[in-house]
Amino acid sequence: MKFNEPIAVTEIAAFIGATLEGDEKLMATGINEIHKVEPGDISFVDFEKYYDACLRSAATIIIINKKVTCPPGKVLLITDDPFSAYVKLVKRFRPFQPSTSPISDTAVIGEGTIIQPNVFIGNNVTIGTNCIIHPNVTIYDNSIIGNNVIIHAGSVIGADAFYFKKRANREVMYDKLESCGRVIIEDDVEIGASCTIDKGVSGDTIIGRGTKFDNMIHIGHGTVIGRNCLFAGQVGVGGKAHIEDNVILWGQVGVSKDLTIGKGAIVLAQSGVPSSLEGGKTYFGSPVEDARTKMKELSWIKRIPEIWQKLGGN
Amino acid sequence: MKFNEPIAVTEIAAFIGATLEGDEKLMATGINEIHKVEPGDISFVDFEKYYDACLRSAATIIIINKKVTCPPGKVLLITDDPFSAYVKLVKRFRPFQPSTSPISDTAVIGEGTIIQPNVFIGNNVTIGTNCIIHPNVTIYDNSIIGNNVIIHAGSVIGADAFYFKKRANREVMYDKLESCGRVIIEDDVEIGASCTIDKGVSGDTIIGRGTKFDNMIHIGHGTVIGRNCLFAGQVGVGGKAHIEDNVILWGQVGVSKDLTIGKGAIVLAQSGVPSSLEGGKTYFGSPVEDARTKMKELSWIKRIPEIWQKLGGN
Amino acid sequence: MKFNEPIAVTEIAAFIGATLEGDEKLMATGINEIHKVEPGDISFVDFEKYYDACLRSAATIIIINKKVTCPPGKVLLITDDPFSAYVKLVKRFRPFQPSTSPISDTAVIGEGTIIQPNVFIGNNVTIGTNCIIHPNVTIYDNSIIGNNVIIHAGSVIGADAFYFKKRANREVMYDKLESCGRVIIEDDVEIGASCTIDKGVSGDTIIGRGTKFDNMIHIGHGTVIGRNCLFAGQVGVGGKAHIEDNVILWGQVGVSKDLTIGKGAIVLAQSGVPSSLEGGKTYFGSPVEDARTKMKELSWIKRIPEIWQKLGGN
Repeated sequence: MKFNEPIAVTEIAAFIGATLEGDEKLMATGINEIHKVEPGDISFVDFEKYYDACLRSAATIIIINKKVTCPPGKVLLITDDPFSAYVKLVKRFRPFQPSTSPISDTAVIGEGTIIQPNVFIGNNVTIGTNCIIHPNVTIYDNSIIGNNVIIHAGSVIGADAFYFKKRANREVMYDKLESCGRVIIEDDVEIGASCTIDKGVSGDTIIGRGTKFDNMIHIGHGTVIGRNCLFAGQVGVGGKAHIEDNVILWGQVGVSKDLTIGKGAIVLAQSGVPSSLEGGKTYFGSPVEDARTKMKELSWIKRIPEIWQKLGGN
Repeated sequence: MKFNEPIAVTEIAAFIGATLEGDEKLMATGINEIHKVEPGDISFVDFEKYYDACLRSAATIIIINKKVTCPPGKVLLITDDPFSAYVKLVKRFRPFQPSTSPISDTAVIGEGTIIQPNVFIGNNVTIGTNCIIHPNVTIYDNSIIGNNVIIHAGSVIGADAFYFKKRANREVMYDKLESCGRVIIEDDVEIGASCTIDKGVSGDTIIGRGTKFDNMIHIGHGTVIGRNCLFAGQVGVGGKAHIEDNVILWGQVGVSKDLTIGKGAIVLAQSGVPSSLEGGKTYFGSPVEDARTKMKELSWIKRIPEIWQKLGGN
Repeated sequence: MKFNEPIAVTEIAAFIGATLEGDEKLMATGINEIHKVEPGDISFVDFEKYYDACLRSAATIIIINKKVTCPPGKVLLITDDPFSAYVKLVKRFRPFQPSTSPISDTAVIGEGTIIQPNVFIGNNVTIGTNCIIHPNVTIYDNSIIGNNVIIHAGSVIGADAFYFKKRANREVMYDKLESCGRVIIEDDVEIGASCTIDKGVSGDTIIGRGTKFDNMIHIGHGTVIGRNCLFAGQVGVGGKAHIEDNVILWGQVGVSKDLTIGKGAIVLAQSGVPSSLEGGKTYFGSPVEDARTKMKELSWIKRIPEIWQKLGGN
């Protein structure tokens, strides 16, 4: 997420009550998670084992819970609870804005686009030309929809990321990471009925050009889907996954977070994908394997009684 | 889908720019896919291996991409791209009609039926007597709902079929087959919350009398469900399936397209049904098998270490 | 469900046309299913094998289909069809009340709570302070929402229980058990987009304090979820389950009805839980097993070809 204008790190430090270490002349231009940071961004780290990765990332301003050596050209904001400081910044610079009408005045809707009754369109949403948005669709603030996009009834674009920090010794155990990312749906995409596509935590969830979703597809925060993919009904994809172009997922496939499915891969129905898959192949099973390997395995299982007999068993 | 009135095949040919071969006096009375065609219907075929099936079907008017011998009493409409020609016809004779109010003036709603707030009812929808349509339900154009039907909140009746044609060498790879079929929900059906029942491509998706759906059931285009079926939560059924009477599908069962599940079959939770099942039996597994066979198989798997030991393995 | 005021059992007997046996001075204070009854409650039983359990339960008034000995301090209401008599009572004392506006006048909404456009809030709903109810959410009558609760777009709170009685020889085979329970969502809960949480048949469906749901979670009637649980996308839980505190269910997990998952259990993605699980452990598979046991089993399956070779097979 980028700020509307650069903000002095001293102002940031004062706002979150942090001790500043490093170049106090720097300006912050945005907020981002570690895997998405760009120069000028604020990021945060609260586990020692991730310190190095964060300090060596592109982030210019690092909220951290221990005084360490500040890399040149950067600034550390030292505070006991970087997570809460980060959330405080998100709430200040991208606060939730309640809507008073079903379609916000700030929404930009292209020529030839049809918005059916009972649709909700939040603040700062952009919708391209020649789209159809069917009834009872919800489009949260800041979503960007391309041209020739069809979204079927009941779908929800841009709900919050499912992302919490565990606080072991508290009555209410999970702290919400407020998300400030967006959903971007590119041209010529069709989204079926009752799909949910969550916004990114700080970056964008992207559905690539020409991709088609059947009904009840769930896409987690910050996941990037390539072009010309086909997802059948009730597929679920976790957060920050990367599904490359031309991937086909059949019905009820589940895909874990933080992984890549390579270009042109086909995953057969009800399979579960726990880790990255190479492109150009067909997969099956939960956990998923090469489909032919899996089919052979299923045949071998049927031969266990024969093996038992061969051993003289009864 | 039937036309409001018969249309001369010469008019059809001119509209899609096709060369006419055969009886040019014929009138077209409707449009249908190959598996649903009736005399008078227009159908299309674009793969040589399906030519015979299409030419021998009940279709009277066949859009085809090669000049072949026209069977007697029929007419061929020859054009390079039958798929696009068919879509052009659907768009002309059943164009999408945007709605300007949440409940169309053309909807017919029976006595004693309760429509809760925030419901959308499209054009030419018929709803019988003594129904309850709960909030935020969407009923697309041309759907037919019987008497004593309950539809819970958030369900979507009659969204478009998930049906695309692949065009290998184009930037936007999938062409949408515009669907012109309907959803028919018979008397005494109950549909849970957040279900989606897609319309048929050219024919009807039917939910038989007395059938009861739990929440989040997805039913694909043109699927026909019999009477007195029970589907538990999160079941998904693909397109053009036929589920006979008294079938019970437990939670999260997935059923593939183009198959039949026989009368009274029971499919246990999370099973996957890739092909037709005989009625009167209980099934389990993904892919599904007779439930007792599957349970035995699971027991055999547990004995592999014993087999290994018997072989002196370590 | 409790009545607004006690009702004489003689009035109940006359209303359902039952023969009264036992103490005819008693007053009924509510209606409940056998597993939820309290003194003063009416319950029903129509299978001889459950007679004892019902007669020995806390229920004061028992609708039964055979004359048996009435326990002291109780009253029997004897009628041919206890199920229908029970449903008749529910319909009289908690009739469905159609809504004429999207947000009922009888709803009580706490300070600082934001209700986004296109939300439906039924009769006698209570919502606490500082909640956000996102667009197109449906909250059925009598639901109770605590403080600091977030409900994302399209979710449905309090739809009817999926509970039917089979009538073998009728054209419409399933009779609906009208549900009169509620949904209670405690403080600090977050419900994702397009979730469905059904009301209890007679008692309450409860989502415990601090629990967080991702999108498309389905919770059946009367299920009680503890505190600080995390459910990932597309999880489904059947009716009358009890999920204790700190349970984590990963994506697409299915949980059957009438069971308990112990405190702190973790169930890995796509697993199926057919019966109760002890707390504090990690599980995987469909049907579910201890995760390490299951992983070993998957390794053993891969060794079947090796076993076959060892046996000299080919």
